Parts: sequence; C-alpha cells; structure tokens
Amino acid sequence: MIQTDILIIGAGPTGLFAVFEAGLLQLKCHLIDALPQPGGQCAEIYPKKPIYDIPGFPEVLAGDLVDNLMKQIEPFQPGFTLGERADTIEKLEDGSFIVTTNKGTQHKAPIVAIAGGLGSFEPRKPLLENLKKYEDNGVSYMVKDPEVYRDKKVVIAGGGDSALDWSIFLADVASEVTLVHRRNEFRGALDSVEKVQQLKNKGKINLITPAEIEGLNGEDKLESVLIRKKTTAIEDITLEVDHFIALFGLSPKLGPIGDWGLEIEKNAIKVDTFDYQTNVPGIYAIGDINTYNGKLKLILCGFHEATLMCQSAYQRIFPDKKYVMKYTTVGGVTGFDGSKKEAPKAVVKAID
Amino acid sequence: MIQTDILIIGAGPTGLFAVFEAGLLQLKCHLIDALPQPGGQCAEIYPKKPIYDIPGFPEVLAGDLVDNLMKQIEPFQPGFTLGERADTIEKLEDGSFIVTTNKGTQHKAPIVAIAGGLGSFEPRKPLLENLKKYEDNGVSYMVKDPEVYRDKKVVIAGGGDSALDWSIFLADVASEVTLVHRRNEFRGALDSVEKVQQLKNKGKINLITPAEIEGLNGEDKLESVLIRKKTTAIEDITLEVDHFIALFGLSPKLGPIGDWGLEIEKNAIKVDTFDYQTNVPGIYAIGDINTYNGKLKLILCGFHEATLMCQSAYQRIFPDKKYVMKYTTVGGVTGFDGSKKEAPKAVVKAID
Ligand SMILES: Cc1cc2nc3c(=O)[nH]c(=O)nc-3n(C[C@H](O)[C@H](O)[C@H](O)COP(=O)(O)OP(=O)(O)OC[C@H]3O[C@@H](n4cnc5c(N)ncnc54)[C@H](O)[C@@H]3O)c2cc1C
Ligand SMILES: Cc1cc2nc3c(=O)[nH]c(=O)nc-3n(C[C@H](O)[C@H](O)[C@H](O)COP(=O)(O)OP(=O)(O)OC[C@H]3O[C@@H](n4cnc5c(N)ncnc54)[C@H](O)[C@@H]3O)c2cc1C
Repeated sequence: MIQTDILIIGAGPTGLFAVFEAGLLQLKCHLIDALPQPGGQCAEIYPKKPIYDIPGFPEVLAGDLVDNLMKQIEPFQPGFTLGERADTIEKLEDGSFIVTTNKGTQHKAPIVAIAGGLGSFEPRKPLLENLKKYEDNGVSYMVKDPEVYRDKKVVIAGGGDSALDWSIFLADVASEVTLVHRRNEFRGALDSVEKVQQLKNKGKINLITPAEIEGLNGEDKLESVLIRKKTTAIEDITLEVDHFIALFGLSPKLGPIGDWGLEIEKNAIKVDTFDYQTNVPGIYAIGDINTYNGKLKLILCGFHEATLMCQSAYQRIFPDKKYVMKYTTVGGVTGFDGSKKEAPKAVVKAID
Repeated sequence: MIQTDILIIGAGPTGLFAVFEAGLLQLKCHLIDALPQPGGQCAEIYPKKPIYDIPGFPEVLAGDLVDNLMKQIEPFQPGFTLGERADTIEKLEDGSFIVTTNKGTQHKAPIVAIAGGLGSFEPRKPLLENLKKYEDNGVSYMVKDPEVYRDKKVVIAGGGDSALDWSIFLADVASEVTLVHRRNEFRGALDSVEKVQQLKNKGKINLITPAEIEGLNGEDKLESVLIRKKTTAIEDITLEVDHFIALFGLSPKLGPIGDWGLEIEKNAIKVDTFDYQTNVPGIYAIGDINTYNGKLKLILCGFHEATLMCQSAYQRIFPDKKYVMKYTTVGGVTGFDGSKKEAPKAVVKAID
C-alpha cells in the first residue's frame, strides 16, 4: 500500500504544481495518472506547441512547461503510479482514503486532490473481434516503455502525430516497423510527416496505405495481423508481428470518478472557491476538472487553485498548527532530499 | 485626458499581467504607478533576488520576471503614467470613471482595476526644515531618470541597496557622487558593497560616514547641504551640490484609495472571488491589495485574479457580446501593433 499526505489523481500541470505547493508546507505527494507520462493534456495532446498565456513566459512549448514543472517539484520527490486509472475510493474510519486503480494498486492518504483535467485519457480502440484477448499480450494503445519493442516486429496504425512520431522513434528500436493508415494523407507536424517520408524511402519504415487492420491472430499472444489494403482493388496482407500499437487518439473520460459521490455539474466537479474542496470533506478538485462560478479552464487558474488547496489540506492534517506563509524568496525551498535553495543573504559590511 | 478600456492602478506583476489577459479580449489598458518603473515590489524591493514559486520557473529573479512580463504584454501596447499617485476617482453619468493623480494627470475608463499591492510606494523622508521647498528642486527620493544627474554634483544618503546601487550607477554619470550614511556599515548585496568600496578607493565615490545630512541651503534651488560627521568629535561639512537624493526606503501606503468608498478589511479591499469586483460595480481589485476568504498574497494568485477580472470587465463593456474563450495555443496572440504569434499549423500531407 502506497502511503502519502496528498494523493493527487492526475499528473497534468495542475497536479504537478500542487506537489510544489504541498512541499513548501512539508507535505508529501503521490500522483496517479492513466497516461504513461506526466504532463496531462500538455504532454499528450500538444507537447510541441507553444502556449502564450503562462504568466512570465511570452512563449513556452507545452512540453517544456511540463519539463520545467518536473524540475521545480524535484526537491519534493513525488511518487508516481503511471499508466493506471484511479477507479475506486473508500473512506476509512480515521477519515483517510484508500484509492485503488484498475490494476489494483492501492494508495492511502488523508487528503485526495483530484486534478483529473477533462478526465482519464482513454484510448480509442479499433473495432476488432478478439481484441481483448491480445490486450497487454501484443496489442497496446500507447507506448509506455519503448524498450518493450526492441528487436521486435511492430505494426503501428494511425494517421496523426502519435502514429508518426512513434514510427520514427521505433524505427531505430524495433527490428521492423510497419505503419498502416486508412488514408494516404497524414495529419501532423510538417517535420514529422517529412521524416516518415525519408524513413520510408530508406526502407526503415514499411508504409501500407490506404489500409486498415482487419484481423488479429495468434495462439496465446499476438502472432500476425491481417491488413486490408483498399486501393482500386482490395488486397489482403497477412503480416507476422509481435506487437500491434493502435494509435487512434486518446479521449478523456470522467469515468469512475463520476460515481464517487461528488457533486457533478456539466461533467465537472463542483467546488468552493475558498479552498477548492468538493462536497466530500478531504477531497479537493483542482484544474480543468472542477467548476465554480466564473471558472476558466486555463493552466494558470489550476496553479492558483492548487496553491489554495494545499493551505486547506494542511489545516485538515494539522488542525492545531497555525501555518504562517513565508515567501520562497525569504524562506527558500528545503527539499525532502535535503537540498536547499535560498536567496543570497544581504551582508552588513563596513566600507572604509 | 488619457482614455482607455481598463485603467490599472499599480504596475506590479498583477497589473502587468492584466494587460495581457485584457489584450486577448482586445481591451486596451493604461497603468498608473507611483514608482518610476514598472514591477511593483519585485522591481522596487527585491529585483535581484530569486523567486521559487512562480509556476514553471524553478527559479527566477524578481527583476527578470518583470522583464518577462513586460515582453509578454508588449503586443498590447499598454500606456504608462509613472511616478504619479492615483489620488481621486469620480464616476461619470455614463458609468465610466475619471482618475486623477497627485500631479493632475487625468485618466478616463469604463473599468478601473486596482492592482495597488500593499499600497502606493511612498518614500521615507528625512526630517529636515525647509525640505519641501527643495522637493523637485534639487531634492528627490527616487531616481526617475538618471540623465537628470549627468555632470551634476550629487549627494546620496542611505545605507541600503538603493543607496549603494545608485551611487555605483551615478558614479559614471554625475560629475561628483558623495555617499553619506549614519553608520560605517552598509546593508546590501555583497557585490554592491564591494563595488562601492572599489569606487571609493578609486576616488569615484566620496564616502562620508558615519554622518547625516543636517541642513539644506540655496536661493531658489538646492545649492549646498550641511553634513554632520559624528565620530569621536563632531565635524560639520558644507558641500556644494546640485542634487540631494535621500534613499531611506519606500514604504507602501494604501493612501487615498482608502477613501474611495470601497469596502476595506485589514487594510485591503474586499472582493468577490467570482470576478474580483469590489462593492462598487466597475471597480475591481486584484493582487496583494484585495482580500477574500482564503486570500494568499502571492504573485501566482494575482495572475489568476487578473484573468478572471478581465472576463468580467469584458462583459461589463460589451454586455451583449458573448465571449468564447480560445486557447492561446489555438487562436494565437494578435497584438494591437499588428503583430501575430501563432503555433505552427499541422499539415495534411500524403506520404508516397
Ligand atoms: C490543443 C490545446 C491547446 C491548449 N492551449 C492552452 C493555452 O494556450 N493556455 C492554457 O492555459 N490552456 C490551454 N489548454 C488547456 C490546458 O492544457 C488545460 O487547462 C490543462 O492541461 C489542465 O491541466 P490539468 O492538470 O487540470 O488537467 P490535464 O492536463 O487534463 O491532466 C489531467 C490528467 O489526469 C489524468 N486522469 C484523469 N482522471 C484520472 C483517473 N481516474 N485516473 C488516473 N488518471 C486520471 C488524465 O489522464 C490526465 O493526464 C489547451 C488544451 C488543448 C487541448
Ligand atoms: C522581499 C519579498 C519577497 C517576496 N517573495 C515572494 C515570493 O517568493 N513569491 C511570491 O509569490 N511573492 C513574493 N513576494 C510578494 C510579491 O512581491 C507580491 O505578492 C507581489 O508583488 C504583488 O503584486 P501586485 O502587482 O499585486 O502588487 P505590487 O507588486 O505591490 O505592486 C503594486 C504597485 O501599485 C502601486 N500603487 C499602489 N497604489 C497606488 C496609487 N494610488 N497610485 C499609483 N500607484 C499605486 C505601487 O507603487 C506598486 O508599484 C515577496 C515580497 C517581498 C517584499
């Protein structure tokens, strides 16, 4: 059982920054995310696109913002349960919560902060008979660890940035990469499209378009896929593969959190703007997932909400302590790893 | 009369960022600040110190944060009335406001956003007879434009960073710089203290310590100061000077805004967290100057408040328009100067 002070569901920018504010209060955090990497929408949907309204950044790539946040929270050593979805919550008699994921991982904490954004990112799956049989057994919908594909035969399906970028990346890792898309046209960053064209020309990526995966075969695990190429005539190709990665996009779903007894309005969780607490004491909701009068789904708003939430969480955990806020410039940042950052002190020195 | 959409009182980080958010809504801003430069506390009190809790910046010097904000708002061409204090406000029949400064400059706008921080920065003045006579006539309490001192004889009094840093800066501008402090010890950044020591050794700064300015003389304008040096014996020195700059620190005062009919609590202006509006419709208060349940006087909170405020201001100005928020990543940033920033678009391109 993983134990922590604040269990954060969702490792998007809001959840990540909450780790920092909690750390300043000496509270430890652990994050759960359905995605294999932290960063939420920024990392999953638009890592290479610039954001212009993060205060103090005239321009910052969404992926760089996530990297910066990861660096900022480093001293506070957050734990991560990645690639798992928080499914159930249980309140214990001592007031603390146990949150269990779809993979059965259990987490215990006195405070739960839901920073779930638009919901848990769930893959769009192809409509294929016996798909379930091969899930985690040759078929996957996101790349959690590229090393899994080393020296294997991989077929990737999809026509967007993920399909392009993973084809490029795995061309150097897998023994064979085949990219299948139902159109000839791909939609993505120009340089990604061009790079795939080059790798195809060099024979490092096999391209089969316009085509779709029509069948999966194999005894205990995936052994081959049936690809149907649809030009003027129809052509069926059976390709021996170890892995089929279907990259048809991820779409966020509020999912099981919708059944946790929290007040929901317009697919979001209602909170009080005093501390962004939900109708269940001890459970907070911050960032895109919450709603209140005047709510804007902006990253900078999530930062503010995370900050006020941590103050309230601190009071819940230590009802008898009075926390006196100290500016980071004045008090510095003391990490759980023993690191200490602080402003150079002024000197008092005679001039003679 | 200066006319604008949102008149912002206070050019600290909160007021500056409000210009950006207003600009996204195509609203123009003008800022008034008592200080000669934008940046509020960050620029005036601790420009060279690091801040650790600005989201996305593991560390940023307060002065750099201000520079970044100035760069971020550049496309929205804000106007500035600097070195003047907003003193009075008047509501016109059409619902708009006229704000007049202590120097008589008038500003008209349908929306007033008070981003006054801890208040208008007012200098601590030395207790000297006939001080008033020489104000703006040889005596000043902050450096608005260093060029005023070119080839002049200047005496600076004070023992902190401002006195040290301006002595260093003006050593290259003025014909003569004399630094007077009532102690031998200065309190400031180590390199500033060391630099003054070097300039003193080279004869570029005259140092008189421990000493105080005891008198001011001159017909129509300042012509000389009386310096009393207090070692074992007392020694009086009359020094011919063109300028006396008293840098004894600035302290923020809520000042005249306290009499504008706004609801005040603990020296701050009460607002509603829906849109950070005060009890007077059309007047908002954002950043350190406001108070509400759960308020934290942090820069990142001011950013959020400024953002929600702008949405509400837009609705007041255009009650019939429905504003649909667009992400900057998606819609880009279109400046009033005709500039346009936008994310590179995805391409749709065949691979053959
Ligand atoms: C194309 C695009 C452009 C954008 N541009 C801007 C912009 O310019 N400025 C701006 O401010 N905002 C922009 N946004 C919005 C911004 O990305 C979001 O406001 C921000 O990501 C919200 O952060 P968050 O941490 O609240 O949630 P998210 O980033 O959505 O992260 C939530 C995370 O929680 C996880 N999660 C949810 N439920 C569960 C569960 N039950 N179990 C496990 N994990 C779960 C999800 O998988 C996800 O990773 C843009 C969004 C998009 C899509
Ligand atoms: C040493 C120190 C360290 C700090 N460290 C941190 C930190 O680590 N993190 C953090 O988040 N915050 C920190 N702060 C606080 C932070 O600086 C403030 O929260 C921030 O400056 C508030 O911004 P603001 O724009 O609301 O107001 P301010 O920065 O105070 O700016 C307000 C401006 O309004 C002007 N003004 C007021 N009234 C009038 C008037 N009537 N007419 C004209 N002008 C007027 C003032 O002159 C001033 O320039 C620190 C503060 C100090 C002093």
